[in-house]
Amino acid sequence: MLNPAVSKELVDIVGRDRFLDQLEELTCYSYDSFLEEAIPDAVLFPVSTDEVSHIVQIASRHGIPVTARGAGTSVCGAPVPVQHGIVLCFTHMNRILEVNTRDRYAIVQPGVINGDLQKALAPYGFFFPPDPGSMNMSTMGGNVAQNAGGPRCLKYGVTVDYVLGLEVVLASGKVVRLGSRNIKDVTGYRLSALFCGSEGTLGLITEIIVKVVPAPVTTKTLMVTFKDLDDTAESVADIIGSGILPAAMELMDKMTVNAIEDAVHLGLPREADGSLLIEVDGSEETCEREIRQIIEKVKQHGAVTIEEAATEEEKERIWAARRSSYGVFAKLAPDIVSEDVTVPVSKVPAMIRKIQEICAHYNLTAGILAHAGDGNMHPLIAGNRQDKDEWTRVWQAVHDMFAAAAEMGGTLSGEHGIGLAKSEFLPLVMDEDSREFMQVIKKAVDPGNMFNPGKFV
Amino acid sequence: MLNPAVSKELVDIVGRDRFLDQLEELTCYSYDSFLEEAIPDAVLFPVSTDEVSHIVQIASRHGIPVTARGAGTSVCGAPVPVQHGIVLCFTHMNRILEVNTRDRYAIVQPGVINGDLQKALAPYGFFFPPDPGSMNMSTMGGNVAQNAGGPRCLKYGVTVDYVLGLEVVLASGKVVRLGSRNIKDVTGYRLSALFCGSEGTLGLITEIIVKVVPAPVTTKTLMVTFKDLDDTAESVADIIGSGILPAAMELMDKMTVNAIEDAVHLGLPREADGSLLIEVDGSEETCEREIRQIIEKVKQHGAVTIEEAATEEEKERIWAARRSSYGVFAKLAPDIVSEDVTVPVSKVPAMIRKIQEICAHYNLTAGILAHAGDGNMHPLIAGNRQDKDEWTRVWQAVHDMFAAAAEMGGTLSGEHGIGLAKSEFLPLVMDEDSREFMQVIKKAVDPGNMFNPGKFV
Repeated sequence: MLNPAVSKELVDIVGRDRFLDQLEELTCYSYDSFLEEAIPDAVLFPVSTDEVSHIVQIASRHGIPVTARGAGTSVCGAPVPVQHGIVLCFTHMNRILEVNTRDRYAIVQPGVINGDLQKALAPYGFFFPPDPGSMNMSTMGGNVAQNAGGPRCLKYGVTVDYVLGLEVVLASGKVVRLGSRNIKDVTGYRLSALFCGSEGTLGLITEIIVKVVPAPVTTKTLMVTFKDLDDTAESVADIIGSGILPAAMELMDKMTVNAIEDAVHLGLPREADGSLLIEVDGSEETCEREIRQIIEKVKQHGAVTIEEAATEEEKERIWAARRSSYGVFAKLAPDIVSEDVTVPVSKVPAMIRKIQEICAHYNLTAGILAHAGDGNMHPLIAGNRQDKDEWTRVWQAVHDMFAAAAEMGGTLSGEHGIGLAKSEFLPLVMDEDSREFMQVIKKAVDPGNMFNPGKFV
Repeated sequence: MLNPAVSKELVDIVGRDRFLDQLEELTCYSYDSFLEEAIPDAVLFPVSTDEVSHIVQIASRHGIPVTARGAGTSVCGAPVPVQHGIVLCFTHMNRILEVNTRDRYAIVQPGVINGDLQKALAPYGFFFPPDPGSMNMSTMGGNVAQNAGGPRCLKYGVTVDYVLGLEVVLASGKVVRLGSRNIKDVTGYRLSALFCGSEGTLGLITEIIVKVVPAPVTTKTLMVTFKDLDDTAESVADIIGSGILPAAMELMDKMTVNAIEDAVHLGLPREADGSLLIEVDGSEETCEREIRQIIEKVKQHGAVTIEEAATEEEKERIWAARRSSYGVFAKLAPDIVSEDVTVPVSKVPAMIRKIQEICAHYNLTAGILAHAGDGNMHPLIAGNRQDKDEWTRVWQAVHDMFAAAAEMGGTLSGEHGIGLAKSEFLPLVMDEDSREFMQVIKKAVDPGNMFNPGKFV
């Protein structure tokens, strides 16, 4: 609990209606989509950079932890305030400040929802490529803090590739502006990139300048199924290796497809061991040619069914199903661990076999969902936290998956981040000197360890 | 001069043949393509990370500055050892360690020439997009350290967008590995990005993992001339604003075109006030359609001549001319200041008028060369260093250009970097707190100010 004098100082800044300190209110801000929770001492909803700066100055003076939060859709525990203190919830700072497609940028406050930015850009024929599964809920501040990915990132790159500039409140309360609205800018260190993926541990993002790009003229969407998961994975590696770069290439295994079918009845063959949702974008002719080449390739790998979405509605239905997969899968068990293991794409077939082997070894039920074109796989492991034995096996399996990925030159996270979920696994992919170097940066930027303490760094 | 005992320690590492300390040798490493020079005390040519680490440990123990150098093509003084000490020249670490187009990456040592990487990728149908004017000479280590751009960066982004991972030797001599060979990786801070554009002030890059991408099926190249420079600039803003994203869009003014004609006789109309080299890439059909749309647009803006390169040789000739422009321009005066002012693209017409106005005001001769599609302009100002009055006017003009750019929301450098050339102008685009924040990072990472001291931070 905060000292009443401190609470008063904070209320003086944001007013009583944007300050929460009652347990039943605080509980709503104690968790995300990961499994752990921690109750903050207070939740504040700033509406301006100035307010954020003043709150930080007070917190700094009193040594109170400050954890930033957007929509709370993180799946790695990033916004969980494990050392309590203040949660700064940015959902009230949700204005799109400028859309300038002539100069190819947009300026947003951190609480703007990714999907709302997309809607604002669409009339101009532009879009913001990063499209995390949570895009209709998650905020741009969270997207930047986690360096969010998504299916389209196969072709277009992740959030950091689109951040031109940031306004950040530092631990001192000072406000710095990093980068600019210029598409090309090599003036000084690229410090905006340092905050992408920093998960709220270095400072608080209060304004974001992103690069936006012309939307493709058209897209074509294919749903392909295979008898064998191996063939599915080989198709992915083969298509990417041939130099075609689809806008998305989503792999789902049998369990995932069946969970989707139970929920939304797409008519996918339930007996197929693997399926691929492939989307290409560009001009009509390019899409057409690439789709033909892809069909050729998947046939060579024994595709059982190949269906092209004929209308926009069909495309939307397929994508809605894919986006719902985590949700529908979550109904299968009391708890689901959604992992984010990533390997170079040529290792996808081997990694999928490894995931299946590990789950069989630990007698666990798991589905596999993957942005397979960039080697980013999401094994969804079903379990029950109350069943201590099973839960231990779940985490042993996760450890083994990361160890296997590390051995293949892979990594812990393609897009979900480290947060609470994976700190302990960092040594698998980063040696001691490299981890120590992260701490050097953290200590220099946030000497009091005020921002999101107790996390990966 | 180094203490003989220190020299002996260094020779023990690299051997006598990779250690230079004679004035006539050192002079060759005292300058780049900028105007200032400073003689180092010794030049070393390491061949391994291990050697680099040992050299850094010795330098650190004795408080000797260490400045990294590649091919010396920098135009901002970045590798000039203004506080003397050791120059580490990476040209012997020039092996391409791996090309893996299936997983879309390549691993290179810092001394690999950009153009050599391109040649290694071409047989696979892949390329590395950043293409600085110096690409046939400049090294990958230098490209990363300066976050190099180039004409193609309009469509494809700059060097930092392609750096997946780095091996870096820190001031302690410790070797850290940042990032990985995975296309998507959000494991910990994105510290590799911190070294992109750090100009050798934070550590020494000893290995580079870059993302490579499928080369476009075809390109189409157009040379357009206009009676009026204003129309030229308006065409650029209009094409980009309409949602077409050419692979390159290079603007040249009359003086530049004439300098090129004098040197290589392309047959460009010498009376044209402005010309545009436009290249689109992609599939045959897409290129064709985009070229038609572009021709439509430039006609609306009063294009005088529109010529499409009919053969690969013609394309190559046009590009060779464009790439030679700095060189041919340099013959016009004893000294040339090549600036790198950048504004949002819609401000290009206004900025060009401003540059002309400023040069007229100070009675200076200047050509304009621009990667105009991303607002990145290179005014080339002719002058004579020996003529004190003229030289003062040159730098007053540069200052005024930056001040004008800053007012338009622009910045000091799109791709050349800050180095020695622009430190003094930083306050025009970065406030005190933001500059101080750069220093916080510098001090944390290089507490002894050993790496490339006396530069922008």
